[in-house]
Parts: sequence; structure tokens; C-alpha cells
Amino acid sequence: MAIVMAASAAARADEGMWTYDAFPADRVADEHGFRPDPAWLDHVRQSSVRLAGGCSGSFVSADGLVMTNHHCAAGCIQQVSTAAANLMEEGFYAANPGDEVKCPEIEINVLVSIADVTARVRRATQGLSDAAFIDAQKAEMARIEKECATDDRVRCDVVTLYHGGRYDLYRYRRYQDVRLVFVPEFRIAFFGGDPDNFMFPRYDLDVSFVRAYEDGKPARVDHHFSWGSEGARDGDLVFVSGHPGTTMRDLTVAQLEFLRDVAFPARLMRLAELRGLLTQFGREGAEQERVARKDLFGVENSFKAVKGEWEALLDPALARAKAAAEKYLRDRVRRDPKLRKEAGDAWDAVAAVQAEKRRQFATWALLEQAWAFPSDLFRIARTLVRGAEERPKANEKRLREFLDSSLPSLRQRLFSSAPIDPAIEELKLTFGLTKLRELLGADHPVVRKVLGRDSPEDLARALVRGTKLADVTVRTALWDGGAAAVAASDDPMVRFAMAVDPDSRAVRKTWEDGVEAVEKKQGERIAGAKFAVIGTGAYPDATFTLRLTYGKVEGYDENGRRVVPVTTFGGLFDRATGRDPFRLPPRWTAAQSKLDRTTPMNFASTCDIIGGNSGSPVVNAKGEVVGLIFDGNIQSLGGAFWFDASVNRAVAVESTAILEALRAVYGAERVVKELTGAP
Amino acid sequence: MAIVMAASAAARADEGMWTYDAFPADRVADEHGFRPDPAWLDHVRQSSVRLAGGCSGSFVSADGLVMTNHHCAAGCIQQVSTAAANLMEEGFYAANPGDEVKCPEIEINVLVSIADVTARVRRATQGLSDAAFIDAQKAEMARIEKECATDDRVRCDVVTLYHGGRYDLYRYRRYQDVRLVFVPEFRIAFFGGDPDNFMFPRYDLDVSFVRAYEDGKPARVDHHFSWGSEGARDGDLVFVSGHPGTTMRDLTVAQLEFLRDVAFPARLMRLAELRGLLTQFGREGAEQERVARKDLFGVENSFKAVKGEWEALLDPALARAKAAAEKYLRDRVRRDPKLRKEAGDAWDAVAAVQAEKRRQFATWALLEQAWAFPSDLFRIARTLVRGAEERPKANEKRLREFLDSSLPSLRQRLFSSAPIDPAIEELKLTFGLTKLRELLGADHPVVRKVLGRDSPEDLARALVRGTKLADVTVRTALWDGGAAAVAASDDPMVRFAMAVDPDSRAVRKTWEDGVEAVEKKQGERIAGAKFAVIGTGAYPDATFTLRLTYGKVEGYDENGRRVVPVTTFGGLFDRATGRDPFRLPPRWTAAQSKLDRTTPMNFASTCDIIGGNSGSPVVNAKGEVVGLIFDGNIQSLGGAFWFDASVNRAVAVESTAILEALRAVYGAERVVKELTGAP
Repeated sequence: MAIVMAASAAARADEGMWTYDAFPADRVADEHGFRPDPAWLDHVRQSSVRLAGGCSGSFVSADGLVMTNHHCAAGCIQQVSTAAANLMEEGFYAANPGDEVKCPEIEINVLVSIADVTARVRRATQGLSDAAFIDAQKAEMARIEKECATDDRVRCDVVTLYHGGRYDLYRYRRYQDVRLVFVPEFRIAFFGGDPDNFMFPRYDLDVSFVRAYEDGKPARVDHHFSWGSEGARDGDLVFVSGHPGTTMRDLTVAQLEFLRDVAFPARLMRLAELRGLLTQFGREGAEQERVARKDLFGVENSFKAVKGEWEALLDPALARAKAAAEKYLRDRVRRDPKLRKEAGDAWDAVAAVQAEKRRQFATWALLEQAWAFPSDLFRIARTLVRGAEERPKANEKRLREFLDSSLPSLRQRLFSSAPIDPAIEELKLTFGLTKLRELLGADHPVVRKVLGRDSPEDLARALVRGTKLADVTVRTALWDGGAAAVAASDDPMVRFAMAVDPDSRAVRKTWEDGVEAVEKKQGERIAGAKFAVIGTGAYPDATFTLRLTYGKVEGYDENGRRVVPVTTFGGLFDRATGRDPFRLPPRWTAAQSKLDRTTPMNFASTCDIIGGNSGSPVVNAKGEVVGLIFDGNIQSLGGAFWFDASVNRAVAVESTAILEALRAVYGAERVVKELTGAP
Repeated sequence: MAIVMAASAAARADEGMWTYDAFPADRVADEHGFRPDPAWLDHVRQSSVRLAGGCSGSFVSADGLVMTNHHCAAGCIQQVSTAAANLMEEGFYAANPGDEVKCPEIEINVLVSIADVTARVRRATQGLSDAAFIDAQKAEMARIEKECATDDRVRCDVVTLYHGGRYDLYRYRRYQDVRLVFVPEFRIAFFGGDPDNFMFPRYDLDVSFVRAYEDGKPARVDHHFSWGSEGARDGDLVFVSGHPGTTMRDLTVAQLEFLRDVAFPARLMRLAELRGLLTQFGREGAEQERVARKDLFGVENSFKAVKGEWEALLDPALARAKAAAEKYLRDRVRRDPKLRKEAGDAWDAVAAVQAEKRRQFATWALLEQAWAFPSDLFRIARTLVRGAEERPKANEKRLREFLDSSLPSLRQRLFSSAPIDPAIEELKLTFGLTKLRELLGADHPVVRKVLGRDSPEDLARALVRGTKLADVTVRTALWDGGAAAVAASDDPMVRFAMAVDPDSRAVRKTWEDGVEAVEKKQGERIAGAKFAVIGTGAYPDATFTLRLTYGKVEGYDENGRRVVPVTTFGGLFDRATGRDPFRLPPRWTAAQSKLDRTTPMNFASTCDIIGGNSGSPVVNAKGEVVGLIFDGNIQSLGGAFWFDASVNRAVAVESTAILEALRAVYGAERVVKELTGAP
């Protein structure tokens, strides 16, 4: 029965990443005795923000102050650091408004409206399949987005929900002037490091404050969260409002098998080797350690997350549940003549295309996901080369990332002043080129074309040392100069990106037309069958759109013992060993006597979250912020595929801890006042 | 039908790693028109040798000259190299007999006799199971080996064939004084490096010559191979006599799933990360590159081999064939009351124990396979600590590696003069300790005990820099001093090995009693059922015992094109790019004009081989050596589980190429004369 339930609309208690326009307020009222009303929902929605790079956050003052995680601002922290001023090591506090430092690449989005455009998208693709289907769908989405995005302050995304069951237009207010206000040291933000990552109990101050600016001044915002003075306590009802990135709960069994056997293992082996390279590089000296840290953090974090997801896929219980749920749905479809005609063969079509995915995956990942070219300088070169070719085309004919609606974000990254470390670039590009040769073989035509008689090391060195693309003015000239400037460029990285582009575009087209088009079209059919069989009351898989989830502050059982849901400063000091990654920053050692050991530090709740929710506010029934999501426990990684309320826990920094640290450890009075509204 | 055939005794053409006492001479006569007679078989057997470290070889002169692969002697080459004389880079040739250099760790075995001891082993375990079963079996095997091994020149191993279907006593002549005679440069031995490893066409001179000594003089041997002047040509019938290490063709489906889902992926991720660490370490300088090379070669080779095996396990065709073969056998057993009683529930028992394996695997691999302590100095410390505890016990009560019959090989390694590089030791031990914490979690009792408040880096540094075990005299004193000396030692590595030993032994015992014992006992039952259903004419899985296999020099189809089976010197020079790993050593560039481009260099044959066969002689019907196995193609990696004659190919160096290189490139006239019997 539990198995069939998984296929039904009745998600289990606390399960669900709900869109704001379909939040189950009645169910929350039934289960928890509190009914969020429309005003409450509007306020929470408009106080929530998205960091376009892949995180969440919230407004915590009327002057555009945004709270998010340290690890969500880590790119900025690294980019504004230098060998002399290492903000990862030291933290940062703008004691005066004028001290706030611009982040080169952070973009903040606030959801303004949602509109259902399903009928319009469907009309455009009616009767089409393969390349025609995907071209028509892409073009129609581009038109919708372009009509909506009236200026650079408006961001419009047509999002696919329910794997094609619904298409919505999400309209955001966009802020690209974002400045750093406060961050603690990396060592306390990520206390416990990789060993404690995705673990609970936990003791991290993974917080940062940035500010949205408008016309060079702090942005005035209509909605922001008040600071919850009572914090979060065991048993409290809490909500998380944020942007979960990707779940795969509605994939077919065949699609899950592809992930289990091909995509995830390939990614894990790649990450494991890159981790080794970066680790050893970081041991060469303090400056090497500094420049490697951001990549290494990302690699280790991804490795642990993907490994957890992959292990969930290997769990026989999950495989049985997925098979049973799919069988239940297919049996129902088979017995209904109308449904059978509409969707009866969709699962087999999806299964058939997995063989094609297996054949194409390595080449596609290497060339088009840039596994072979994991370099910022290459990314810039490719953006310039493709931009020159794409921008003159009609909007709806372009590659997706060059649509008019995409250009503001693209330009922000392309012209970012963030420093690019050549040694890390060489390391990563050498690695990528080595994998290209390893995975396709030394005699593959693309490998011969790319490497010629060079070794990966020699080619990477020549490209990285020869290119001038680290200079933003050079990029600007090539972007503004368009096709003629790019064609005339003798920059080796630009020439290289041009040389591989025909092969790479061909691989992309084959993948999009032969794989993505099939999965999208069949996805629509399967979604239709699900709506017919189990109703429209289910929540859609996460797609980095704003969702609201609810639950309780609650512990769980692990290896036969009870894990309590709230940790304290005392636990932090007990866990510190003096050695990384369990070493406290000097400010914390110095402040120990001033801090109350019983202050709550981190807490676990049953809210249903996933990667992308990092930085999400945890809100109480009063609509006050009482915590800051920064992680899930190791059991939460299976949440990519299903929700197990007995052990899946969201992990947050408690609001009291943030305030006490700002006061007693950092003396960040300006931020404290702004948060608490104190005079 | 093809599926059922896989379960039958009728192996397909050329399939089979046959023991010498059951070689299917009639079938070879039927298929190839040549019947190896007993004299032929005896001569080939006695001319074949085993390198105890995991390779094969052959006598190629009456004076104990042994031909094997460069990569089989690589340990020795590395060990006798220094920063000043890098024999991996330069190669080695003892122009005079007195120049031959002793290899610290090579042991050579020549099979003298095989005796069936099945009845005796079975009697000892009758009616027993779990710990009692495995203790009794181990004790009886120890008794048999001890009775047989009359002095250190005799090596006796009781080997398990057919997963318990048969137990044989293999008696070997042992040579521990082995000296280096000739090796080419690593760059030509392993031309193409990792990208070309397990690939074909191929262009490697992966050969070395060493010599067995007896009483300080070259050993006189009764049998050796003559050099085949005609070499190997497309279509020739050839035999390979060697020591395939491990195949898993007779494992149950449940056992294969454990490898697919747990053991292989864990190993691959571990190897991938270690590869990254060693690669980057090797870039720190020429000397770092030199000391890292041996480990890096081993890691890359294992990674590619295990990855190929793992991908074979993911092949749906293999899964279907294995499931069908098992079903066929189980159906037959089920329908026969006697067989049903004897073995009916054996498969389910094996399946049930896989869950236990999954639970225990990480801890067992970390502590008892030393994944957490991948350090030579730790291995030495553990050998000393355990030796002190084990050696006073009655022979049959000891851990297997301390049996009297095992001690000569153990002592050779323990007292080896091979240098130990402290930087590589630190790197590997840091890695292992980091994985220990990562895989068990920072709060696991063993992790807390091992690390205390240390970081992996700090602990590894302290142990490696503090220990004196790199000094052979220190090891000797501790070995000879026994338990008292070990207990009194303040060497930090010895103390460390002592501290982890109780936990590690407990893990080993749980694994042996709870997992191995079940698989061994049920393996006997399944083997019995197989003998009953499909007869005793099948060959047993490889177990690093001497096997003879036969086949033809033959090409194959790959991606729609025909791969011809013999490459030439011309192809080598065409493939050279001047950059590693496609860079030729200077001697080869210089000799290019003297070499005939049409000389055969490497060739592929349908002989059924696997890792451990490295260094095996390829022999023609006249009993002459015509090649030297050094690899299989990428398709051969699936050979761990099944034999696909259409694409599985053994890859060898052609004998003509060896001789021409010795003459024209190296001027190694002394070796040429010895091989050809020229005056």
C-alpha cells in the first residue's frame, strides 16, 4: 500500500515542494492547526529571493538587505579576495554603508507573478516531434519571454513543470548590483568541512548578508521578514520558502536507470579525480590553497551530494517503489482506451531513447557540457564565439543562452571583474583534455582535431598562457565587435573555441533533437496521464522555481539512537579540535567565554528541500525568520527521488545564533540594528 | 540457445583457461588440426614460470633466463633506480654476466606437481558451518601445505578450484634470487601510455629479461622455450601458458550484483581520487615524477581494468545471460530430488549473505584491506605486529599469511632493500586516513580512536617522519625480537599498527566467519550441482594457477571496421608525436633508419587470458615462443565474466620485434645469443 501511495496525489505528511499558486493551506491547517492565508503567503513570497547562480535568500530589511548562506556568496568572497586580503580566511564586515563591496557576478531575482502559458506552448508544437517539436517549443518560449521582459530589470522565464504537464511564465524583478555586507570566516561557516557536510548534528554559521542596490543606492523593498526573537524550538511548525533546484521524483524507471548506470557514476569518477588534483595542488603553498579552495569546495560538495543520490538509486526499496508506482499508473492507462491512446506507449518510447542517451552521453558531456574544457577562459571564449554567431539571428532561432531574455545574466558573467587564476585554469583544462582523450580514445576524430600532436598539458599551457581573455576590455571588444572581430582574433583560446565549435554544435543538436525532444514530448504525455489518473493535486518536480514547504523542527532515529534536532554553541566548542576542518577561527576562540553554551546553533526540520534551497529562510507561523537553510542531512540526498519523512531532514542555522554571533563575536552592530529594527 | 550454452560444459571455440591436468587436447585437434601430446604439454608447462607478485613468464634459456613484461619487472626497475640512475627512463642492459642486478622482491615459481586433495579438505569440514567451517578448512590446508613444503626452495599452495568443487595441492620450485638482465625504456615498453592501455592496434615493447639464480649462480633448468624464428602470423594456431589471476565467470547473480553496485564503484572512486593526487604530485618536479610513476602506473592500470569490468557488468546482455544460465541450473537442481536436497537452497543462501557484505564492506576494506592505511611503512609495521602475535601459535591456528608455508615470501618482502619514498608515503597515508573518516564518519569509534584530535595530514606526517622502519636492520631486530621487542618499541608506526589491530582483527574475523565462510560452503554445494548437471568437463575460474589456453592470431570488427591482428614498426613511428605518452626514447629515434618498417611488432589472438597472464609466453605448435602477452584489448575486460570470441583478444609483443630491437636498437648481443643459441 505504501508503494501505491507513492503514485497517488496524497503526498505524505510534510512532503512537497509546493508552488505558491497551489499551496495546500487546508492540509497544513489539518495537520498543524495553522492556515496560511493569502496575505501571509504573499508576504512570504515577496520577502523571498533567488540568487540566479543557484541559491535562495530573503529580504531581512526594508533597505534590501539579503540573508543567504556563506557558501552562496563564496564566489563573490573569493572574487573580491586577494593574496593580501583573504576574506575566506578573515571574513568581512562593512562597518559603514560606504564599505559595502560590489559582487561581480551575483544576480538577485524576486518573483513578481506567475502566468499559465501551457495552452500557448502546446499550440506551437501540436503534431510535431523530434527536431521540429523542440525547435517550435523553444521558439515559442523565446517569444513569450521576449514579450514579457520589457527591460533589463525584468527577468522572464518560461518554466516547465510536471515534465511538460504545465508551462508557466515566471516574471521576476532583477537586481544585478549586489554588494557584500557581512560574512564570517570560512572556518566557522563550514566548520567540520567535508566530513560533516550533509551530516547532523551540525555546528555551522553558514550565513552571509549582501544588499540589493538600485541606481547606486540600497534598494527599498516592500516586503521583508522580521527577525523571529524566539528562534526555533523542537516541535515548532516551520516553513521554508526557496528555490529547490532539481528533483527527479517523477522520472520513469528507465530514466532513473540511466542516471544510476551512466550519468551519476561518470560524474562521480570525474569529480573524484578532480578532487585529488585540486587537493594536491592546494598543498603546494598557502596561495595555492587559497585559489584552489573554491573549486575544491564545489567539487567535494558535488561529490558527496551526487554520491548520496546515486546510493539512493541503488537502494532496492527505492527501485521496488518506483517500479510499483510506474506499474500502477501504466496499468490504469492500459485499462482506459482514451488514456491508452494518448499515452499508452510513452514509457516505452522513453525507455527506447535511453539507449541513445547511453551512446551519446560521453561525447555530449565532454563537448557540450564542457567536461573536456572546464575552464573559465574557455567558457568566455565559447560565449564570444557563439555570441558572434547567434546574436545576429532572429531571437527565437538562437541557442537558448543567447535569447534576448538571457542576455543580461550572460553579460554580467561575461564582463565580470572576477580574477581568473591561470594555474587553476591550466590544471582544469589539462584534466578536461586528458579525459577527452581517455573517454573517446586517442584516435577519435574530435580528439585528433583538438590535440593534434600536442599533449593535454602542452595544449592547456599554450592556451591559458597565450590568451588575453582574462582582461575584461579584450572581452568587451570582441563582444561588441561581433563576428568580424572574433573572426579576426588571433587569441589562441578564441581560435581553439572556434575550432571545436562545429563538432560541439553538432553533438548538441543530435542530443537535443534525438534525446531531449523525445523525453520532452513523451513527458507531456505521461504528465497528462498522471493528471487523469491521480489528479492535479500533486506538486511538480523542483525546477529552481520558488516553492513553499512546511514541517516541524524534529529529530530522527539513526543507527538505533535518537538524534535531537537542535544543537548549541556548547556542542561547537566541544567538537573543535584545533585542526582543520574542526579548527575555530581566532575570533571564536577569543569570544568563547562571552557566549552562552546553551544558545541554539543549528536545527533539523522535516521540511522537504533539496540543493538550490541553500539560503532559504525558515519562517514561523507569524511569518518571522527563525532560521537559514544551509544543508540537508545525508538521508535527505535520497530526496532527489522520494521523500522519507522518518529520516529526511533540512538543516538550518538558528536565528538566535546568527544574532548572538553578530553581536558577541563580530561586533557587527550595524547589521544587528538593521535586522532587529533597534534604534 | 546461446544463453543456455553458457551454462553447459561445451565452452565456445577457443574459450577456456585450462589446467594442465585437464587440457582438452582432442578438442584442439578437432578445431585446429594439432593435438598437443603429453610430452609437448610437459615441456610447455615446465618452461612456464610464475612471478609470485602477480605475473607470468617463461624460461628462454637453459641458464635460467626468464622473459616477462617490463611492467612485471617495473617494481624492481623502480627499486634499483635512483634520482641519478633512472632505469625507468633509460632502460638497463647487463652487458656482462657480472652486471646483472638483484631484484629485491621478485620470486619465481615453477610448477612441479599437482595433487588432488579434495577428499582430505572436505573431510575436515564435514558438517561444519560459519566460523567452525572456515577454521577447520584453513587448518587442514595449512597442514597439507606444511607437510609438502620441505624447505624454502619448495612452495606449496592448496588452491580452491571451481569455487570449492575441487581442492588441489600445487607444488612449486621457488627462486628468490632473481636478477635484472635487460629492460628497455618505460617510454617504449608502455608507448601510448594510459590512452592506449587495453587498446589495439598497439605498439609496445613491453618486455624484460631477468634471470633465476641458485646458490649465487645462474640456475640450470631442464626445460626452456626455443625462440620461434618465424614469429606469429595472421591465422596461426597459438597457445598461451600462464597464470591468469581472477575470473568471476562462475559467480552467482547475487555475487555479481554486489560487485556491480558496491565493490567495483567503491574501488573506482578511490582509484580516481588517488590518481588525481599522484598526478599532481608528479608535476611538482622531475624527482616527484619519478617516485610517483610506479604508483601512478598501477593506479591508472587498475582503474581502466576495473572500469572495463564494471561496464561489462552493466551490459544488459551479460546480465540476461547470467540470469538465464543460473535459472537453467537451478531449474535442473529443483527437478532432481537428490540435487535439490544437496544444493537447492545454496543460491538463496549466497544471495542472503550479500546484504551482510554490503553492510561490512567499507569497514573491512578500510581496515583489513588497508584502504585506510595504503602505506608500505604501515604494511611493514602491521606485519611485525601481527607476526609477533601469530608466529608463536601453532601453524594451523595462525592468520593465513603467517603460515610456515607463507613465510619465505613474506620475509622476502619484509626485508626488501627497496627504497621507500617518504613523500609518497605521506600522500597515500593522508589519503587513506581521509577516506577512513569520510566513509565511516568523523564520529565512528574507530575513526575517533585512529585520529583522536589529529587531522589526517598531521597524523600521516608524524607517523611517516617518526618511524624508523625504512631501515631494514630495524625491521630485522623487531622481527627477530618477536612480541617482547614489538611491545617495547616506541616507533610511532609500530604503536599505531598496534593500536588499530584489535579493531582490524575483529573486522576480519566478522568478515571471514560471516561472509567468506558462507560463500565458501555454498560454493562447494553449487559446484557439486554443476558437476552433476553439466559434467566435469568445464574449466575452473582463474585463481593465479598455471593454465593453458589456445586460439588463433585473428583480427576483429570494431565500430564497423576490421582491425587487423598484427602491427608493425612502421605503425609505431607513424603514431609517435614527440609528446608523452607518444614520445619515443632517443635510442628509437636514432635507430629508425636501421629498422624494417614491416617487422611485426604486436599481435592479437583469440586466446582466453586475463590479468596475471602478463608475461605469459605465446607458443606455436612446435612449442617455440613466438610472442609475449602483455595486455588484452578493451573488450577483453568483460572476460572476467564471460568469453566473447568475436571481440575478446589477447595482445602480445611479437618475437621478431623483440629480437630485432635487442639487436638494432640496444646492441644487446649477449641476450640475443642466449635466446637464439647462436654461437
